[in-house]
Amino acid sequence: MHLTPETLADHDRNYRRNFYNTLPGPRGVHLIGTKGHRGTENLGVFSSVVHLGASPALLGFHLRPLTVPRHTYHHLKAQGWFTLNTLHPAILQQGHQTSANYELKTSEFAATGLTPEYSELCKAPYVQESQVKIGLTLEEEHYIRANDTYFIVGRIRELFVPEAAVLEDGHVDHEQLQTLAVTGLDTYLRVADGERLPYARP
Amino acid sequence: MHLTPETLADHDRNYRRNFYNTLPGPRGVHLIGTKGHRGTENLGVFSSVVHLGASPALLGFHLRPLTVPRHTYHHLKAQGWFTLNTLHPAILQQGHQTSANYELKTSEFAATGLTPEYSELCKAPYVQESQVKIGLTLEEEHYIRANDTYFIVGRIRELFVPEAAVLEDGHVDHEQLQTLAVTGLDTYLRVADGERLPYARP
Repeated sequence: MHLTPETLADHDRNYRRNFYNTLPGPRGVHLIGTKGHRGTENLGVFSSVVHLGASPALLGFHLRPLTVPRHTYHHLKAQGWFTLNTLHPAILQQGHQTSANYELKTSEFAATGLTPEYSELCKAPYVQESQVKIGLTLEEEHYIRANDTYFIVGRIRELFVPEAAVLEDGHVDHEQLQTLAVTGLDTYLRVADGERLPYARP
Repeated sequence: MHLTPETLADHDRNYRRNFYNTLPGPRGVHLIGTKGHRGTENLGVFSSVVHLGASPALLGFHLRPLTVPRHTYHHLKAQGWFTLNTLHPAILQQGHQTSANYELKTSEFAATGLTPEYSELCKAPYVQESQVKIGLTLEEEHYIRANDTYFIVGRIRELFVPEAAVLEDGHVDHEQLQTLAVTGLDTYLRVADGERLPYARP
């Protein structure tokens, strides 16, 4: 089936949103934790986290989250810290519920029953129940003119990972951790049958 | 296990690359096709494609690919077009092989046996064997100062998707298409047990 933005314009807004959102395939899904200058804790679901480099250790994400964008962005700017927390089946329902459109003063932790957890270093809350938790500082923000959104670059300052899931050569085994992936806004998937291929040479 | 960039510095470069690359979890994986001003076709594996919006239809990706970055970037700048092509098990070995460090004048299509395919509109080659193929133009490039890389924004101009995989409400069913995900540079995963959750309300 050959489609263009022009032929897709015949469909309604919902159809197009579903279509474009699911089109590129499965991707990672994370809860991003922030804290406002008045102390309000915020959690939102994001499906745009990208590995940017190991030296320095950088991750990026696109700030048009499934939940209300303004809270995460304002908190990020106010405090300069955020956390990335993975999802697994035991917390899927609660994790997805954080995408509801809560008021700014409502903490998604309190609303969904997930537990905020703090380290000595990181000023933003972690999700205690998550398997992999990463604490980052805001490093750069890039304004995407084409649709008035942001690409945020964060620098990893600390992290928590179950020791048994880290293989001898540094690989983190997400099949073992049951880390979920997502397509679109609402379809969560398990990953399975991992196949590790050798380094490719010409 | 609590780690910081400082404690991780005790490990060698390979360990750290594996670790940071796999840490955030499974993500999407695509072959990006481009064509140089002298006509050389290029294919590379990327694991950083992000949905940016449906109106206009935008996708982004981080330009530090698994393969040699310069070819894709130079071709992108020269021609302004690129394609995104999904991976599934039948073309996994060939797809991964495109990450080998071929010379600029070598086409990864010829080297791996994947078939270049052209549409009337798109100036970059598609991978005929892929299930989902998206043709885009270069819309914006953002320079990431922190590690001298780029975040590229592309605008969808056309696409090809198997009709049977598009559900009534616009969702593309990647479990049916067997679209692969990846962790790190080399571990490819199937997605399974998709669970679609209802729109979350407070």
